[in-house]
Amino acid sequence: MVGNSNRVESFPDASDLEASLPVPTPSLTPLEVHKVPAPQDNPTLQSLKQRLSEVFFPDDPLHQFKNKSLFRKLVLALQYLFPILQWGSEYSLRLLKSDAISGVTIASLAIPQGISYAKLAGLPPIIGLYSSFVPPLIYSVLGSSRDLAVGPVSIASLVMGSMLREVVSPDKEPILYLQLAFTATFFAGVFEASLGLLRLGFIVDFLSKPTLTGFMGGAAVIVSLQQLKGLLGIVHFTTKMGIIPVMQSVLENRTEWAWQTVVMGLSFLVFLLVARHISSRRPELFWVSAAAPLTSVILSTVLSFIFKAQNHGIKTIGHLQKGVNPPSVNMLFFRGPYLSLAIRTGIVTGILALTEGIAVGRTFASLKNYQIDGNKEMVALGAMNMAGSCASCYITSGSFSRSAVNYNAGCKTAASNIVMASAVLFTMLFLMPLFYYTPNVMLSAIIIVAVIGLIDVRGAFLLWKVDKFDFLACTSAFFGVLLISVQTGLAIAVGVSLFKILVHVTRPNTVIMGNVPGTNSYRNLAQYREAVPLPSFLILGVESPIYFTNSIYLQERILRWVREEEEKIKKLNESSLKCIILDMAAVTAIDTSGLETLAELKKTLDKRSIDLALANPVLEVAQKLSQLGTLQLFGLERIYMTVGEAIAASSYKAQTSASCVVHRTSV
Amino acid sequence: MVGNSNRVESFPDASDLEASLPVPTPSLTPLEVHKVPAPQDNPTLQSLKQRLSEVFFPDDPLHQFKNKSLFRKLVLALQYLFPILQWGSEYSLRLLKSDAISGVTIASLAIPQGISYAKLAGLPPIIGLYSSFVPPLIYSVLGSSRDLAVGPVSIASLVMGSMLREVVSPDKEPILYLQLAFTATFFAGVFEASLGLLRLGFIVDFLSKPTLTGFMGGAAVIVSLQQLKGLLGIVHFTTKMGIIPVMQSVLENRTEWAWQTVVMGLSFLVFLLVARHISSRRPELFWVSAAAPLTSVILSTVLSFIFKAQNHGIKTIGHLQKGVNPPSVNMLFFRGPYLSLAIRTGIVTGILALTEGIAVGRTFASLKNYQIDGNKEMVALGAMNMAGSCASCYITSGSFSRSAVNYNAGCKTAASNIVMASAVLFTMLFLMPLFYYTPNVMLSAIIIVAVIGLIDVRGAFLLWKVDKFDFLACTSAFFGVLLISVQTGLAIAVGVSLFKILVHVTRPNTVIMGNVPGTNSYRNLAQYREAVPLPSFLILGVESPIYFTNSIYLQERILRWVREEEEKIKKLNESSLKCIILDMAAVTAIDTSGLETLAELKKTLDKRSIDLALANPVLEVAQKLSQLGTLQLFGLERIYMTVGEAIAASSYKAQTSASCVVHRTSV
Repeated sequence: MVGNSNRVESFPDASDLEASLPVPTPSLTPLEVHKVPAPQDNPTLQSLKQRLSEVFFPDDPLHQFKNKSLFRKLVLALQYLFPILQWGSEYSLRLLKSDAISGVTIASLAIPQGISYAKLAGLPPIIGLYSSFVPPLIYSVLGSSRDLAVGPVSIASLVMGSMLREVVSPDKEPILYLQLAFTATFFAGVFEASLGLLRLGFIVDFLSKPTLTGFMGGAAVIVSLQQLKGLLGIVHFTTKMGIIPVMQSVLENRTEWAWQTVVMGLSFLVFLLVARHISSRRPELFWVSAAAPLTSVILSTVLSFIFKAQNHGIKTIGHLQKGVNPPSVNMLFFRGPYLSLAIRTGIVTGILALTEGIAVGRTFASLKNYQIDGNKEMVALGAMNMAGSCASCYITSGSFSRSAVNYNAGCKTAASNIVMASAVLFTMLFLMPLFYYTPNVMLSAIIIVAVIGLIDVRGAFLLWKVDKFDFLACTSAFFGVLLISVQTGLAIAVGVSLFKILVHVTRPNTVIMGNVPGTNSYRNLAQYREAVPLPSFLILGVESPIYFTNSIYLQERILRWVREEEEKIKKLNESSLKCIILDMAAVTAIDTSGLETLAELKKTLDKRSIDLALANPVLEVAQKLSQLGTLQLFGLERIYMTVGEAIAASSYKAQTSASCVVHRTSV
Repeated sequence: MVGNSNRVESFPDASDLEASLPVPTPSLTPLEVHKVPAPQDNPTLQSLKQRLSEVFFPDDPLHQFKNKSLFRKLVLALQYLFPILQWGSEYSLRLLKSDAISGVTIASLAIPQGISYAKLAGLPPIIGLYSSFVPPLIYSVLGSSRDLAVGPVSIASLVMGSMLREVVSPDKEPILYLQLAFTATFFAGVFEASLGLLRLGFIVDFLSKPTLTGFMGGAAVIVSLQQLKGLLGIVHFTTKMGIIPVMQSVLENRTEWAWQTVVMGLSFLVFLLVARHISSRRPELFWVSAAAPLTSVILSTVLSFIFKAQNHGIKTIGHLQKGVNPPSVNMLFFRGPYLSLAIRTGIVTGILALTEGIAVGRTFASLKNYQIDGNKEMVALGAMNMAGSCASCYITSGSFSRSAVNYNAGCKTAASNIVMASAVLFTMLFLMPLFYYTPNVMLSAIIIVAVIGLIDVRGAFLLWKVDKFDFLACTSAFFGVLLISVQTGLAIAVGVSLFKILVHVTRPNTVIMGNVPGTNSYRNLAQYREAVPLPSFLILGVESPIYFTNSIYLQERILRWVREEEEKIKKLNESSLKCIILDMAAVTAIDTSGLETLAELKKTLDKRSIDLALANPVLEVAQKLSQLGTLQLFGLERIYMTVGEAIAASSYKAQTSASCVVHRTSV
């Protein structure tokens, strides 16, 4: 059935071992023998270097510098550090036209959202405008995404607000609260930039999509419920984030509900939702939902001015300071009892802001078919937040909703962020008094509409269908956020996700394989119904690296397969078990515990007069096995390139003739 | 080159998709078509059930109950719960003779070690004897190992002492310290038993051998240094465990060094080391090292009595209370400020005691070729510690050194523990006054000799050779214990070990494959030098499950392979890249992020007119791919059983004729 026999032998003195092989080599008829290239001199350091560069530089960021002149390298380096030099040098009027249109469009969205999100974070509304001015300018110089619209984002605002409010009240100690927010933003920036510089960007990958789906759904529900304060016009409201205290607050303060506020809030809520629905059904009408918030703000402000809303129980924003961002370096602190809170908040909001920013950047880059460098983006976002924290800005990132509008409005470069910042600057300098009559309920409606889009029921359903464990991570994040707290929900979900990986590694699958008729392939019997097991052989596929966490389990599990196979044989009176072949194709790594386990297994099977052969080890495993003396030490001699060849060699032993090719390969 | 083409197709309406296949199906010449069995009705619950039973019952503990009568089942159940019923019913005089000899031998070791280890834990020496009496009795009823010698063990004693001493001084508050020790022991028992009952035994597997090698080496150095107090006769000594405070203590108190103590200590240290060396060289002389401690204790006590040692600055044990264990239930506490310390200490010492006990049990079981059930052993050890804590015993487990002596002395069943306990009982009732003159320095010498054997330099060297990361885990545990603290060292080492797994999962290998001439096999080009790449094809092996932690990395890495391949082709003017084949053999699992990544990759490659085909997915991945709609949703249609068949199908497209067999298989 099997024609050739290729042996994987990679230890230095294969000839010595040849003598001790169970298959008498001389009686094989080698049709063709491949030369064994001498093993490399220093594989340890080389492989370590290669491994580290794979871990930290998988994207090979310097490949464009190869084979270039020094001057060209300098230009490339500057363009690498400041992407604006790259696209700026080729900038044209045509591009400016596109960027100007999209910039003004996102500005009309950014101004009301900025004010609203600042309120979400417990900060004065003006901070939201400040944060829509400086960070976009910095990003347009450093950032490599052409579509990212930068500014305050809902999730990071929410989490910053909820973490800081647990300790300090923004109403009672507004200055301390502001200091905390700026300091946390500074640390978020430091954290983001360090992750990028240390090329540890993969840490954001640990927030899996299921986790984020659940987390954002939960956060959206919490935030929407919190907006009931504004929507119902309640004055005395809890500062807590849990669903229970919020609902208690809503129900206990029924006397404070103001019907005028409710009517106005619900009307604009419906208006915004309809606008959003229209845009989501017909993407070319993106400007309907993009313009809706500003339209609502203007309309509600005019209504509120005409009807003297504040006399009817409708609260308005009130006085807003004119002018550009004041410096806030003096408000940062690096000692005192609140330092650890600021650092903690910075790290959590920083990682959330990064996750959103990077994910949004990647999404639109893949739509337009260009690449962004995750680690470099992190440095850009980090620098933007560090600078922002010194100019009265709180945490910012790339916003999903505004970036989508930016993309649909036809932006070409990061210049759209500059246009947006200019529009915000104009607003701050000249239009601030107009916000005096803007009703607070309007901001609540804008927040609700923004976050409701984060609830992804369809996504959760897909998770349920494809992967139960992912769904569990998703729901535990959702209920963790809803019932306990935002950070706890996040921590639980990350824990569940990592636990899944560890369980998979700790309890790997082992499958029984058989021959697929008419081929040389051996496959899982449960998967390929036509595959047939071979008498006297037990072919096991091990579907995981063999590590200390699973080596004992695998040993026991394999022995259980053997026991069950022997019981079956006894019952059916088949020929007795002679050989176990482990298909190592999926054993992508092995550690010392794993090697010892294989040796133990070999010894145990030897006592029962059952042969053990290994088939198709990958490079890393073959290297470990070939480590000077390991094979001798562990008594593992029978290693073949394919299952078929392992069987051929054993069949030969059992007086079946077979013509064999001995492939010897170095590792 | 490749004869047959087997397609893995497992979605319900394969015929619909057939039409949209890149290979025009009708022009294939199907020689043989395998039937597709209908997919099972409820695979979700079934596979979940199967998965859970694999995770929690990998050893299938109930398999012996199958097909038995009710009465037989009852007997088996009782024997399962109380293994003493199993071996007790077949017990004979011949067995008793063996067990009596080995029992007395380990008792002669257990008595001096018990006293010494209790001192190591900061407890009165008598507690060490109590702990060598009750726990062995309980273990002999519940335990399933025939070789385990139960009693106080060095590592757990050391860690309990170091954790409790950080908060409470055993000299200043001896009663509180005792209460803490008993309570911690109780919680250790509860923790151990719960792990076993919940079948979470795999948690001990997370303490990998490299971690333990480093940890035990560090602990042995620390403990040996601490014994300098006894060996030099120093009175004022630090209670800290770090290497720096201990050495400071030794050097600052040079005036307290007593030469008589030093001479006596060193003489017996040399005697014990020589005895140990003899036994390790010639295993049949095991009784030399087994008898040495008791001999030394007797000899030193006689010497100390004759020369009135206490007049020459040699401190002795002094008065020891006669009688059996007093009850200590009243000393356990379940509230108050020290509760969390007790629980923490209990968990850490419990897991260490378990690790040693289970590992030792498994080692000797494999030597005698019988199996022990890890989870059941945990329940036995846990019950033993819970009961012990109510009878003035501190944490106990299976001791490696005494079990080795037990094994060598020819023990047959757990009855040797009963014999040992009886000998200890006799000592407690009648021989206690004899210890009055035993010098403390003797105990220090016994401890040093016991722990010095834990330093495994050869093991560490092997780690360095085979696996650098394992070596790193080992050294970080070693220096963590030595320089920071016992718990920190342990935590660092576990962290390093888990980080290794996560890095492997986060940054998996991707390798380029080629055809091994004369075979249908496709293998890593770097591993098999004779393998040749195929023009127009890029065959990539992905060596890891595709998870959220690595999906983005893999996507970028694969695109980089494509970029590099295209650059090479451009340089060499070869035929352009037409098809990427992913060998999925080692992709043992995939989650929703992974599926999305494959879809993204497909889209990106489509834009560049490059084909994407998947080869040889394992069952779990094939199931995920075939999930209703997933394939259509993600546009993944080209899935084959082997790389060769994927190529055959594509070659056909490129006007190469090939006869094909279509294997359709359900999952």
